[in-house]
Amino acid sequence: MTDTWLPSLQTPTPEEGYALAIKLSRMAVKMTQPDDAVRQQLRTIYERDAAMLTATSAIVATHFQTVAAANNYWKD
Amino acid sequence: MTDTWLPSLQTPTPEEGYALAIKLSRMAVKMTQPDDAVRQQLRTIYERDAAMLTATSAIVATHFQTVAAANNYWKD
Amino acid sequence: MTDTWLPSLQTPTPEEGYALAIKLSRMAVKMTQPDDAVRQQLRTIYERDAAMLTATSAIVATHFQTVAAANNYWKD
Amino acid sequence: MTDTWLPSLQTPTPEEGYALAIKLSRMAVKMTQPDDAVRQQLRTIYERDAAMLTATSAIVATHFQTVAAANNYWKD
Amino acid sequence: MTDTWLPSLQTPTPEEGYALAIKLSRMAVKMTQPDDAVRQQLRTIYERDAAMLTATSAIVATHFQTVAAANNYWKD
Amino acid sequence: MTDTWLPSLQTPTPEEGYALAIKLSRMAVKMTQPDDAVRQQLRTIYERDAAMLTATSAIVATHFQTVAAANNYWKD
Repeated sequence: MTDTWLPSLQTPTPEEGYALAIKLSRMAVKMTQPDDAVRQQLRTIYERDAAMLTATSAIVATHFQTVAAANNYWKD
Repeated sequence: MTDTWLPSLQTPTPEEGYALAIKLSRMAVKMTQPDDAVRQQLRTIYERDAAMLTATSAIVATHFQTVAAANNYWKD
Repeated sequence: MTDTWLPSLQTPTPEEGYALAIKLSRMAVKMTQPDDAVRQQLRTIYERDAAMLTATSAIVATHFQTVAAANNYWKD
Repeated sequence: MTDTWLPSLQTPTPEEGYALAIKLSRMAVKMTQPDDAVRQQLRTIYERDAAMLTATSAIVATHFQTVAAANNYWKD
Repeated sequence: MTDTWLPSLQTPTPEEGYALAIKLSRMAVKMTQPDDAVRQQLRTIYERDAAMLTATSAIVATHFQTVAAANNYWKD
Repeated sequence: MTDTWLPSLQTPTPEEGYALAIKLSRMAVKMTQPDDAVRQQLRTIYERDAAMLTATSAIVATHFQTVAAANNYWKD
């Protein structure tokens, strides 16, 4: 992880804000379980498990709330 | 996914805001599991499982909070 | 679903705001599982399952937060 | 349920605000499962189940957030 | 429970705000299950169960959000 | 725990804000289960369990929301 994985919460468009929310939701997993191989194994579970996919979507929703507020909802 | 799946968080009415919240909640699943066939299988589970439907509704609630704020609660 | 299921987030009183929050929490389920018969079956589960009732209550709490903010907490 | 179960979100003190948050969290259960006898049965489960108590506490936290904001955090 | 368990949401420091968030998260459990002995039993479960500890931490996060806002994030 | 584990919610950069959110999410676990050995055991579970990792990520998301707001989203 370098200094630059999260330079800013500002994004030019809502879509990029949503992509950032996904990145933010994955980073916590990466920091808790830094081993790439273990994470890859878990990822296989996430991708095929309805409950896990739903849980992931909930986290993205919370981060998107933050990112959207940071961008004043891209209203400006 | 094109540049235009999320052009804006602004919607003319609350109903359209709610529909956008549903779209936002599904997009995270789509981005985590891009395979349409697998998603279709999982969708069958969601639709008949009370816990999954509830979890989905919770995510919609969070996104609707964001969309409603973005539209100043359609008060203007 | 007609254009009018959600005409506004404004309600005259907190009680009506709470009722709207319940409506908002149910609508996501309706849109994900449009089949009335299946939903009725699931509803029987919700009503007797402590975990489901609790999950439902959590969703209402999030929507009530949105509706309360939309009404400036009925302070005006 | 009468017109008066939720006359206002304003409370004189934080403690009363917290009590209101508990009331708000229970009301969704009451409205989803209006049968007192069934609810009483479920209540017995809640009270002895760690996971249910925790889930209840989470809902109270969300409602308390709403009530606290409605009272400007009792700062005035 | 006396009148004074929650005199204010204001705390001099962020640390004390965090401690208050923990107190707020426990109080809902206390009010739902007032029997000390039962609560003590459940507490033993919480302390050794990863899922329960995580759920508790989530509630603290929500309350800390409220307390932090009440203190204007201790910026003043 | 000393007076200084949480001196401030302000951080110079978003990355450091995210790191603080992770710290905040862990501290509730530490305060609920102060025994290092038990926590270390539980940590082994978290790190290999997809559901636990996801739950942890959700808590980080809530705390990051708080920290981001405290820093005015690092816009200044």
